[in-house]
Amino acid sequence: MDSNKYLPEAVASLIEELNKLPSIGRKSAQRLAFYLLRQNEEDLTKLAGSINGIKDNVRFCRKCFNLTEKSIENELCKICASPARNQKVICVVEEVLDLIAIENTLEFNGTYHVLHGSLSPLDGVGPDNLKLKELFDRVAIANGKMIADEETDTEFEKIEELILATSTNSEGEATALFIFENLKNSQVKISRIASGLPVGGDLDYADEGTLRRAMKGRSDF
Amino acid sequence: MDSNKYLPEAVASLIEELNKLPSIGRKSAQRLAFYLLRQNEEDLTKLAGSINGIKDNVRFCRKCFNLTEKSIENELCKICASPARNQKVICVVEEVLDLIAIENTLEFNGTYHVLHGSLSPLDGVGPDNLKLKELFDRVAIANGKMIADEETDTEFEKIEELILATSTNSEGEATALFIFENLKNSQVKISRIASGLPVGGDLDYADEGTLRRAMKGRSDF
Repeated sequence: MDSNKYLPEAVASLIEELNKLPSIGRKSAQRLAFYLLRQNEEDLTKLAGSINGIKDNVRFCRKCFNLTEKSIENELCKICASPARNQKVICVVEEVLDLIAIENTLEFNGTYHVLHGSLSPLDGVGPDNLKLKELFDRVAIANGKMIADEETDTEFEKIEELILATSTNSEGEATALFIFENLKNSQVKISRIASGLPVGGDLDYADEGTLRRAMKGRSDF
Repeated sequence: MDSNKYLPEAVASLIEELNKLPSIGRKSAQRLAFYLLRQNEEDLTKLAGSINGIKDNVRFCRKCFNLTEKSIENELCKICASPARNQKVICVVEEVLDLIAIENTLEFNGTYHVLHGSLSPLDGVGPDNLKLKELFDRVAIANGKMIADEETDTEFEKIEELILATSTNSEGEATALFIFENLKNSQVKISRIASGLPVGGDLDYADEGTLRRAMKGRSDF
């Protein structure tokens, strides 16, 4: 049912635009549009400006493919550029949001590699659609098996450990396996983040796959 | 935890803006921002333009306070302006979205009055914050008890029935009662939308209040 025919053109077209966004259905789009209608011009301009400008000064870090600002000269993100971070340990994640989630634990002091997705042949996502070649090259260059195209990258330190922190769904597992298969002969230690019961979780609510993993990955008390 | 410190300024500021919107939390705002980052400039400009322009051509209908376009000369909404609609029956709703919901039933052929809220003293919303005076004036003018300020409104037909379709929560009930108290001596028939079991609802899942109403409001089979 086209409910928007009862609305002024401007409101209907905004609802249509909002409805295109992920996880915003028709009802949410209507509610958002009516909320925006009640805001003052200044707030609307600010939001619109932020949307318009989101790409203006944003690029990928040339090393780890995290987001960074175009205005930064060495094309590195804050993490790769920080001398406080351990360049010898690389945590491989699917998305920038995963990197942020790990940063928020305040537990990890290494650097990252953002794949920008996970292998999903059904969705047409193969190795070439991810930053996998870039990861393999990075490991090869860092460990002296390959020479960088660009000027000498003195900051490419020898890599000691690669932590595969892709998701524990089938795509994430396949991606982790793919990386392992490609790098298992590279003398780099490859680890996978632990899978098991979430902290605060009830054992009898856990699914069998999780419980099986939790048993198998048990550690000494 | 300020997760946005790991992000470029443009992305962080968009996340902040999106986070201000109702029912969009920090996580949703991040997801939306990353979705928008992947869109092309054209789509971004279109969305930003829609947000910026939402108020440009929008005003309230001078009769029922539904939304309408500024460019329409008689300042009426499509429903009030339609000769096919029964001007003698007015359905009173809280919000424009409620009007749309009723329109979608295709059952109602009368006109509306949008209050733009419901009485909620705890939130500081009193009768003066709603379009209540406008409703009372409208009834008075239509029924010849009052003369319109503006030029003669020939389209103000005598009102025969007022259907109170405010919500069935306490604010909606209070608003309906307030309208009834103010208009009970006006010779206009005042009705309230039925309250009872939702269609397709299981009886044993209904709360007691609903069930009590459903029993009380029973009709002959």
